[in-house]
Amino acid sequence: MDADLRALRERLAEIADLARAGGVLSWDQKVTMPPGGHPARAEALATLSRVVHEKLVDDEVGHLLERLRPFEESLEYDSDDASLIRVTRRDWEKQRRVPTELRVELTRAAALGNQVWIEARATNDFARFLPALQRNLELKRRYVECFEWEDSPYTPLLDDFEPYMRTSEVTEVFGTIRPVLAELVREAPRVDASFLEQPFAVGGQEAFCKRILATLGLEEGSYRLDPTVHPFCTSFSTRDVRMTTRYNETGLDSLWSTMHEAGHGHYAHGIAPSLERTPLATSPSLGLNESQSRTWENLVGRSRPFWLHWYEPLQETFPTQLGDVDRVEADETTYSLHIILRFELEQQLIEGSLDPKDLPEAWNAGMVDLLGVEVPDDSHGVLQDIHWSQGGIGYFPTYALGNVISLQIWASVREAIPDIDAQMEAGELGELAAWLRDNLYSLGRKLTPKETIERLTGTPAIDPQPYLAYLSEKLAALPSHA
Amino acid sequence: MDADLRALRERLAEIADLARAGGVLSWDQKVTMPPGGHPARAEALATLSRVVHEKLVDDEVGHLLERLRPFEESLEYDSDDASLIRVTRRDWEKQRRVPTELRVELTRAAALGNQVWIEARATNDFARFLPALQRNLELKRRYVECFEWEDSPYTPLLDDFEPYMRTSEVTEVFGTIRPVLAELVREAPRVDASFLEQPFAVGGQEAFCKRILATLGLEEGSYRLDPTVHPFCTSFSTRDVRMTTRYNETGLDSLWSTMHEAGHGHYAHGIAPSLERTPLATSPSLGLNESQSRTWENLVGRSRPFWLHWYEPLQETFPTQLGDVDRVEADETTYSLHIILRFELEQQLIEGSLDPKDLPEAWNAGMVDLLGVEVPDDSHGVLQDIHWSQGGIGYFPTYALGNVISLQIWASVREAIPDIDAQMEAGELGELAAWLRDNLYSLGRKLTPKETIERLTGTPAIDPQPYLAYLSEKLAALPSHA
Repeated sequence: MDADLRALRERLAEIADLARAGGVLSWDQKVTMPPGGHPARAEALATLSRVVHEKLVDDEVGHLLERLRPFEESLEYDSDDASLIRVTRRDWEKQRRVPTELRVELTRAAALGNQVWIEARATNDFARFLPALQRNLELKRRYVECFEWEDSPYTPLLDDFEPYMRTSEVTEVFGTIRPVLAELVREAPRVDASFLEQPFAVGGQEAFCKRILATLGLEEGSYRLDPTVHPFCTSFSTRDVRMTTRYNETGLDSLWSTMHEAGHGHYAHGIAPSLERTPLATSPSLGLNESQSRTWENLVGRSRPFWLHWYEPLQETFPTQLGDVDRVEADETTYSLHIILRFELEQQLIEGSLDPKDLPEAWNAGMVDLLGVEVPDDSHGVLQDIHWSQGGIGYFPTYALGNVISLQIWASVREAIPDIDAQMEAGELGELAAWLRDNLYSLGRKLTPKETIERLTGTPAIDPQPYLAYLSEKLAALPSHA
Repeated sequence: MDADLRALRERLAEIADLARAGGVLSWDQKVTMPPGGHPARAEALATLSRVVHEKLVDDEVGHLLERLRPFEESLEYDSDDASLIRVTRRDWEKQRRVPTELRVELTRAAALGNQVWIEARATNDFARFLPALQRNLELKRRYVECFEWEDSPYTPLLDDFEPYMRTSEVTEVFGTIRPVLAELVREAPRVDASFLEQPFAVGGQEAFCKRILATLGLEEGSYRLDPTVHPFCTSFSTRDVRMTTRYNETGLDSLWSTMHEAGHGHYAHGIAPSLERTPLATSPSLGLNESQSRTWENLVGRSRPFWLHWYEPLQETFPTQLGDVDRVEADETTYSLHIILRFELEQQLIEGSLDPKDLPEAWNAGMVDLLGVEVPDDSHGVLQDIHWSQGGIGYFPTYALGNVISLQIWASVREAIPDIDAQMEAGELGELAAWLRDNLYSLGRKLTPKETIERLTGTPAIDPQPYLAYLSEKLAALPSHA
């Protein structure tokens, strides 16, 4: 038993190391790599994914898992070892269905698509991006064919990001929030946010982002923040967390983008050390992970108490721009609607009812329909986001699910830390970070998403009501400038 | 035949990709990684080296090489395919002697030693570094035992950096240059270089280094320059070359360090595209590689014609410091002596006649003896250099060999480009870069070091005379300030 467990752990540690190596290569590709490096990087990433896949789907892993079944059943369900065996078994069974060559092609196409997207976005040229998108979609459809599904061919893609969830469940949640959000958007008072539409020196933004970041409870020397075209967060251990943000010449979006990535960073940072170099050293789902980026971005970073503390320092950093403006608010409502649109279009692409070449038109029509927004050009429309370029189909719904889940968990936070508002107003975020670490982040991927949500909130259901209530209250509190 | 060659090429491409991944991880470790990432990084690097080693020493590689022998013999000796088979056979036979576990331990100890060295150097604390050094030496001795040698146990270590060369050959070359250099150092006129011992703004140094770099003939978008504790160069394809330099607050060493790494960068950049993702996509030896860093650092970057072009722009960048100084010279003589000392101490450590704990004393004594220099403390003495911390024993001689070889090749350059001085004076380095690329860099590792030198110079011998003549002439031309 001991020998089997040790053998399994060794194999999984090796796989984790190789997957992390792939993570470093991807980070470097987006943050530091000179553009000439793209073709070779795509090959290196493809090879790493081949080796990882071969090692994971190996027969011997299956034998070890089978022999470890009695041991697993003798342990507590949520013990490290039982969870490791259980979660690995699901991964193994799932990955065994995917031919290695397909896995390699998916990785290569994603790496190459990423570069094409950067060029297409910069030149507002959807046609240039189209072949890469078609290639990624074609591979995704071949991937879907490796699995069975009941409701939609989209479900196997969703499962990569939101395990155990079916497309129909997402449709149901979105069906509840969509009309409410649409109404909120129509009826919301127009906020005068024109003071944000001015130039803010990039150096000042960067210094301020790093200053806030240093107060969020992340251990010094365990993270870094870099600029990228599309902000993201990745990690190579709990003490090597890489966040990125985007400094626009105009506006202060970099602040919320930094807070957002800090939420992902907190998750990676808070995983229990005993789970390092295992497949459990991540979050149970992207939805849960997004719930935390949304927690730090919105529930903290767009809250009144947080800005009661930080607005004065911000004014001091940018006295010309903010000297005579006395508050910062920003809009969270439209975000989930934009996600719902992505979700709907993704399903159509995968089901084959939308041709990728018609995507810009469908995108623009959806933006008018859902949000009343005229898209100026493809760079600010269908090409705005990175995920489709790297084969990230099935990822988008987790953003909106994250918004919903963040409010469910936030209710538990308020119960556990009744003076959370006062703490935020004092600029103190340590207790919040520690509570989330102890009760959520440290669990890693030991439990399923719903088991994890149940442990924190008492119910496994994804309940949109707290989220909708939060938005209504927040919008109601805004002074009307109409 | 075709199938065997394809199979071999596929395996080697996979190995090359994984080795490149290790390279990215090492670069990141030194350039961008937060310090908290060290333990996990050492594991990831160890795992990558395990996978690379296992894939290379696989029996099937041996079978493929055996079956390809008739094909190899039917080809030109220096064709890509014949060279690939021949060089891979030597790598395979050599690596087969090394147990995988030892290979993994060597990598792990090197990655961990690197971090300890950074801390020990910063705190001038040799005792803190000693255990890591002892561990690396112990592993190196076990590595040496995997091989046979005639002259010294140092030869197998040297072979990793300078293939086919024996320790006794190095001793002979160094025996020739050592007394001449020592005499040159004693008799050299004292140059007044005090104007370099003032503060130069790091931002100005960086901008100037990048400005020079852009004129050296490297393709834009194919390289980057970053700051590190110890400058180095690595590459992940011919179009992804990473150079680093060190900006001290005082002095302009960063300029020559950048030129030095640009020489390594040129080598990586100039490898023939047909050799990409093969074991031939590197230089035949570190000595040859160093000959090029020395070419760009010294023969170009410390030459009078180069500075006739660049001194005015440098003065304009730093008017306060250089406004009334009319030239820049720096000393190249002492460098090789310092290398000879490293070489002698390394041999004693490996042969067991010097205990690592006595190293600081031996170092300091050698510096007085060879150079007449009193070492102020270990940080500026035995701890100054990074290589021993990462198990780089056997590497140092290649620096001095590089100096020697650079002058042999430079004679051929002068013959091919008679107006090279005039070109440098005009700030034009493109023809030099192209000639070296076509005649040296593009060959990659197809030929042995001596075959490569013979192709460029007409003789395979390593001849120190041009190097000694160059130094004598240069020192003689200096005005005496004594």
